[in-house]
Amino acid sequence: MDEALQGYRGRVREALENAGVKVGDLVRIHGGSETYEGILMPRIETADDTYIVLKLRSGYNIGIALEDSMSIERLRRAERPQFRPPPIPETKPNLPRVSIISTGGTIASRVDYTTGGVRAAISSRDLLSIIPELSDIAVIDADILFSIFSENMEPSHWSEMARRAAQKIRDGAEGVIITHGTDTMGYSSAALSFALQGLPVPVIFVGSQRSSDRPSSDAATNLIGSVKAAIEAPFAEVVLAMHESTSDDSVAFHRGTKVRKCHTSSRYAFRSINSQPLARLKDGRLEMLTDDYRRRGVDELVIRDRFEQRVALIKFYPGFDPGILEWLADRGYKGVVLEGTGLGHVGSKCYPPIKRLIDEGAVVCMTSQCLWGRVNMRVYSTGRELLRMGVEPLGDMLPETAMVKLMWALGQGEGRGEALRLMRMNIAGEYSERTLYEKGET
Amino acid sequence: MDEALQGYRGRVREALENAGVKVGDLVRIHGGSETYEGILMPRIETADDTYIVLKLRSGYNIGIALEDSMSIERLRRAERPQFRPPPIPETKPNLPRVSIISTGGTIASRVDYTTGGVRAAISSRDLLSIIPELSDIAVIDADILFSIFSENMEPSHWSEMARRAAQKIRDGAEGVIITHGTDTMGYSSAALSFALQGLPVPVIFVGSQRSSDRPSSDAATNLIGSVKAAIEAPFAEVVLAMHESTSDDSVAFHRGTKVRKCHTSSRYAFRSINSQPLARLKDGRLEMLTDDYRRRGVDELVIRDRFEQRVALIKFYPGFDPGILEWLADRGYKGVVLEGTGLGHVGSKCYPPIKRLIDEGAVVCMTSQCLWGRVNMRVYSTGRELLRMGVEPLGDMLPETAMVKLMWALGQGEGRGEALRLMRMNIAGEYSERTLYEKGET
Repeated sequence: MDEALQGYRGRVREALENAGVKVGDLVRIHGGSETYEGILMPRIETADDTYIVLKLRSGYNIGIALEDSMSIERLRRAERPQFRPPPIPETKPNLPRVSIISTGGTIASRVDYTTGGVRAAISSRDLLSIIPELSDIAVIDADILFSIFSENMEPSHWSEMARRAAQKIRDGAEGVIITHGTDTMGYSSAALSFALQGLPVPVIFVGSQRSSDRPSSDAATNLIGSVKAAIEAPFAEVVLAMHESTSDDSVAFHRGTKVRKCHTSSRYAFRSINSQPLARLKDGRLEMLTDDYRRRGVDELVIRDRFEQRVALIKFYPGFDPGILEWLADRGYKGVVLEGTGLGHVGSKCYPPIKRLIDEGAVVCMTSQCLWGRVNMRVYSTGRELLRMGVEPLGDMLPETAMVKLMWALGQGEGRGEALRLMRMNIAGEYSERTLYEKGET
Repeated sequence: MDEALQGYRGRVREALENAGVKVGDLVRIHGGSETYEGILMPRIETADDTYIVLKLRSGYNIGIALEDSMSIERLRRAERPQFRPPPIPETKPNLPRVSIISTGGTIASRVDYTTGGVRAAISSRDLLSIIPELSDIAVIDADILFSIFSENMEPSHWSEMARRAAQKIRDGAEGVIITHGTDTMGYSSAALSFALQGLPVPVIFVGSQRSSDRPSSDAATNLIGSVKAAIEAPFAEVVLAMHESTSDDSVAFHRGTKVRKCHTSSRYAFRSINSQPLARLKDGRLEMLTDDYRRRGVDELVIRDRFEQRVALIKFYPGFDPGILEWLADRGYKGVVLEGTGLGHVGSKCYPPIKRLIDEGAVVCMTSQCLWGRVNMRVYSTGRELLRMGVEPLGDMLPETAMVKLMWALGQGEGRGEALRLMRMNIAGEYSERTLYEKGET
């Protein structure tokens, strides 16, 4: 239960009590030449008796180490900020139609001033109403599909997203935007890359790393950029749109199967791995960075939205317990993607359970925990032994894309042989162009 | 069993048979304006009937797609290259003493021309004999401790390495070098960073990405650079020495707890993460890149070489089966390092088994699968819930370093409380300097 001075203890609690301050109050702390003004936040982590946490007007939280020489002054109960969206501007009916499907995440969230945490709260429609520029460039059709933290996304959510996106495309959208929490957005973009075959228009995942009530929020730039790309982009692929650099005016569009979140908090957290982004939007202009992409409108949309759940992604490390692989076999797992070391290795103690999994009909694939480069199991005798057992090497495919693809390949229900055939095909750019043998640095 | 045309089938096999060629023969293939000469290699991977694989004089393997217009000519049985080290040069007894402990890996390997694979074969002493420059700068004392592929390293090997390194230091070495396979070298360097407390001299892990019989081998540069640093470096830490860039003359020295193998095959595969290398050796000169390091000879060496094996590193992803965590609890695991998403999250379905693990006395820690940045579980309500359960956030510590450290912290046998206390301390630079609260990009 939250209480008036939640998480504060010892001398700091005493000082706050003496000043008659409660969590949620606007407070001024003064010491020496410094004065801080902000809303008193609760403490959550293992509490020390040193810091007072204030949310400043800028939206940032700071911790102030309380010194005896400091004074604490209660100013007033802070007004709880109300979210009052402006009225939605009138739409201009001759503009192209873009669908926004909201699934949750920071891009659709705001700080809850009573707990200090961020909560999923704002719908795409609300977001639209605070970014009125959008109504000048498109007729926006906005849906809330889910409102969940992206760490709670499951393969069943991917299926629902795929079906909703397909419906929007069939209803005439020029492009579909899916707002999504950044934590697992790369997994979802990979999933829809496989689930939506023969795409005629772009499907653009977009997120933000800073909630829209923060001055440094990337939500508006990323969303406006996505709407522009949904209308103008020549590509018809599943992509992921986020800040490209420290600059606030440049959005990169990464191929959905080749992208990873590489930073916990930076706005340009996403990077194309073993590949480059398809396009960049800068100063309002969309620039293609490659010629190698699917064109708009060339094909008939086909939905393949089934994912086999009994697929695991297993990272190997020294001290790894091969019993985990036995447990997967016991549970009837149909597929395992190994995240091996280097060129694609696991300790020899893993060979018996791997052999058992394959003998019992599972598909076992190899990827690398090295972020860049590609699996090559012909170089060392240990890799060759794994190949002989039937472990399938996956080139430069990202481990998480490999896991999603294996769920999808096995989800087709055509058995192990067909799943292996699909794993070897380059279906959505998940393999970079293969060189016959590696020569030097890549 | 290997056989004369191992792995070749169909029309390619037929063409090779007609030419009277066997694996291991020197062969010339001629077609159009191209001529290839090399040793016929066996095929291992799922065989096609298209490619002939030759090892060229350069050391590279190439695959040649057989065309009807091509001719195949057997030149002769290739001489099996013999490794004949030159005599070891006489040592100059007044030079500083450096110990080299060999554990295996590419730096101590060569291509086996009968199978085309790379085998661990060359001892440090052999390597020394083919890099005679070393005898001009140090009296080298070389030991073979193991000769294993690094994916087979276990925590027990870390303990042995720590004891052997300590013995060499007590015997008067100015620095200790450990040659190691690159796949798990970062795990081992982290392990010795904790196991060797109060180091008076540098302990330098060194590997190579290309075996020493290849023209592009990085073995000599890395080893010479390590010996120089073992003698000259002002730091007394466990570091990892590998190529810094595409240039062959620059070696970076990464802190053992902050380094990861980031590329499967490049020679500059290792990078310092959330940190910079301690030093660089370029054109024979050692340059310190930071002032923040342990100095030589300031302390008494203490060995803490026990690692608790019941510690797992678990990467979370959508579709993750929380049953894996239940299984760890069933098996009496003492510690779990979660590699969560973003700022340090896992799906809420994992909360019950996490709570159970903690209730049963295990230490559960959180790291991020985002390579850069740091865990911050105060931002979202889900992160705060994990903190309330007792999950320990590990800042910007690498997941693999966290796992090694937790094995070590629990290995001290002082129980959960002491292990948690150790996890929070910055013992070997595993935490970058903490900022009180994150402000903007890091």
